[in-house]
Amino acid sequence: MIRIGIYGYGNLGKGAEAAIKKNSDMELVAVFTRRNPKDLVIATEGAEVVASSDILKYKDKIDVLVLAGGSATDLPKMTPMLVENFNVIDSFDTHANIPAHFKNVNEAALKSGHVGFISCGWDPGMFSLNRAIMNAILPDGKDYTFWGKGVSQGHSDAIRRIEGVIDARQYTIPVEEALEAVRSGKNPVLTTREKHKRECFVVAEDPKEYERIEREIKEMPNYFSDYDTTVHFISQEELKKNHNGIPHGGFVIRSGETSNGVNHVIEYSLKLDSNPEFTGSVLIAYARAVYRMAKRGEVGAKTVFDVAPKDIQTVSYEDLLAHTL
Amino acid sequence: MIRIGIYGYGNLGKGAEAAIKKNSDMELVAVFTRRNPKDLVIATEGAEVVASSDILKYKDKIDVLVLAGGSATDLPKMTPMLVENFNVIDSFDTHANIPAHFKNVNEAALKSGHVGFISCGWDPGMFSLNRAIMNAILPDGKDYTFWGKGVSQGHSDAIRRIEGVIDARQYTIPVEEALEAVRSGKNPVLTTREKHKRECFVVAEDPKEYERIEREIKEMPNYFSDYDTTVHFISQEELKKNHNGIPHGGFVIRSGETSNGVNHVIEYSLKLDSNPEFTGSVLIAYARAVYRMAKRGEVGAKTVFDVAPKDIQTVSYEDLLAHTL
Repeated sequence: MIRIGIYGYGNLGKGAEAAIKKNSDMELVAVFTRRNPKDLVIATEGAEVVASSDILKYKDKIDVLVLAGGSATDLPKMTPMLVENFNVIDSFDTHANIPAHFKNVNEAALKSGHVGFISCGWDPGMFSLNRAIMNAILPDGKDYTFWGKGVSQGHSDAIRRIEGVIDARQYTIPVEEALEAVRSGKNPVLTTREKHKRECFVVAEDPKEYERIEREIKEMPNYFSDYDTTVHFISQEELKKNHNGIPHGGFVIRSGETSNGVNHVIEYSLKLDSNPEFTGSVLIAYARAVYRMAKRGEVGAKTVFDVAPKDIQTVSYEDLLAHTL
Repeated sequence: MIRIGIYGYGNLGKGAEAAIKKNSDMELVAVFTRRNPKDLVIATEGAEVVASSDILKYKDKIDVLVLAGGSATDLPKMTPMLVENFNVIDSFDTHANIPAHFKNVNEAALKSGHVGFISCGWDPGMFSLNRAIMNAILPDGKDYTFWGKGVSQGHSDAIRRIEGVIDARQYTIPVEEALEAVRSGKNPVLTTREKHKRECFVVAEDPKEYERIEREIKEMPNYFSDYDTTVHFISQEELKKNHNGIPHGGFVIRSGETSNGVNHVIEYSLKLDSNPEFTGSVLIAYARAVYRMAKRGEVGAKTVFDVAPKDIQTVSYEDLLAHTL
């Protein structure tokens, strides 16, 4: 059994916990929390809830520690710190800061002799993996990434900060015509507006404010002004009933030529009922690779680019040859 | 430069040759042929055309030998034989015989100290890779593979063997309703007939024979009788004009739950203008991994399951972190 710890018990931590239940070679040893452990009820019988300050007591009881923290402030400190004593895996997703994060984790991991796996999930993660493989196979081509239909937490938060808004949910939606143009192999040049549109469901105090709120949303720079944005005002009850999930997904498409006029389109897509549960499932599959790499004596920072597919499998290599190849 | 040899110069050999031109870290040293080398004109200036009987003279001049032979009779003998003196890669695609082929190649490769990479292409190959990763991420789910729209050489040949048929081209086409049912996450149970249909373009000598030929096609066991099959009689000119390409493609879809009622759909698809050119491109990308594995001293039979994505890249790991992850 691979002994897993989960550090943090928000949506992602719960997603990782759900994923462990689907993998019979894994067991959840403990959830570590910055809250009072007594206030936390987890979904796994037999697993402990432990104060994060007590984590070093679990140094020899955990094979891989899943870090379910946020990328903005948690993981940049948390991953280098915890890799001093554990093999860890995180879902660090601030793309621009990945090289710096890799460097910090790598230094600490090399020093302590652990594996520090970073930026695992679907983007970064599965989307990155597919982009890398597609590029190697079709070097003469063009990449496209579309996100959605899915909830953007950042955009939902931005709407909530507008005066008079009680609650909001924002969906990022890929534009179907753009997807079709890419799939046709035409290699179109697409603007931000042509690729995605944004749909907002907003609960506001006063109907007299609707017009102002809608205008403030649509004109918000970076978040909305470059997109075709639709705003719907609904009741808190309706928001709770119809927009309570955290679905997401997207498309990575590469279109390229192998000789003059001979074109190929490779497409990878995800349609996810729950963004954190899927991300948790990717983390848990790659935690298996972390375990195996550490057992072989590999150390340092790692990413999806370092993992041979056989290292995330529960089935034997012989089974893969007979049934999957 | 990675020095490549191509063994066999049919459609697949030509596809591999085209792929080498798109990869600046590779050069084609020689094409080996069982025909008279003087009769063969290849598309690469500076590369040699050599009789296959002279191949041992190239033992130190080639890093990876791409085996562009057929799976029925060529590769089962060719791959174990050539791995005695070369690092090789093949596209062996008789799924049921992969474990036996792997065993034969592995024994010969271990004995000689080479890498023998087998079953590379898109199915087996990219489809297998995606099936393996999808299964690891969503262990509680169901796989679906659809092929097409594309030309099936075996089915076209079967039609050509019917009396009175001059030429024929058969397309395998996935049934759109079945694809949609799978994408919806309903995990449908689908019969052979529900998954694919077959469309045949036939050139026949005598219009009075059309009815009999159409009946013989539609009733042919294994090939057509389990499918909804459409037959069109056309002229040789029309066949040549509109059905001269070798397009193919397909879909691998996995649909699975991470917790009760929370479903996810992962889809990988290919739309290929030329089956052999795409297969050649996959072979050439993985030839890079063969080269690197051999340089590291790895030996034995290998498949796509053994390759970390970084090993098929031309760009540096730092570039991958900064731009692809």
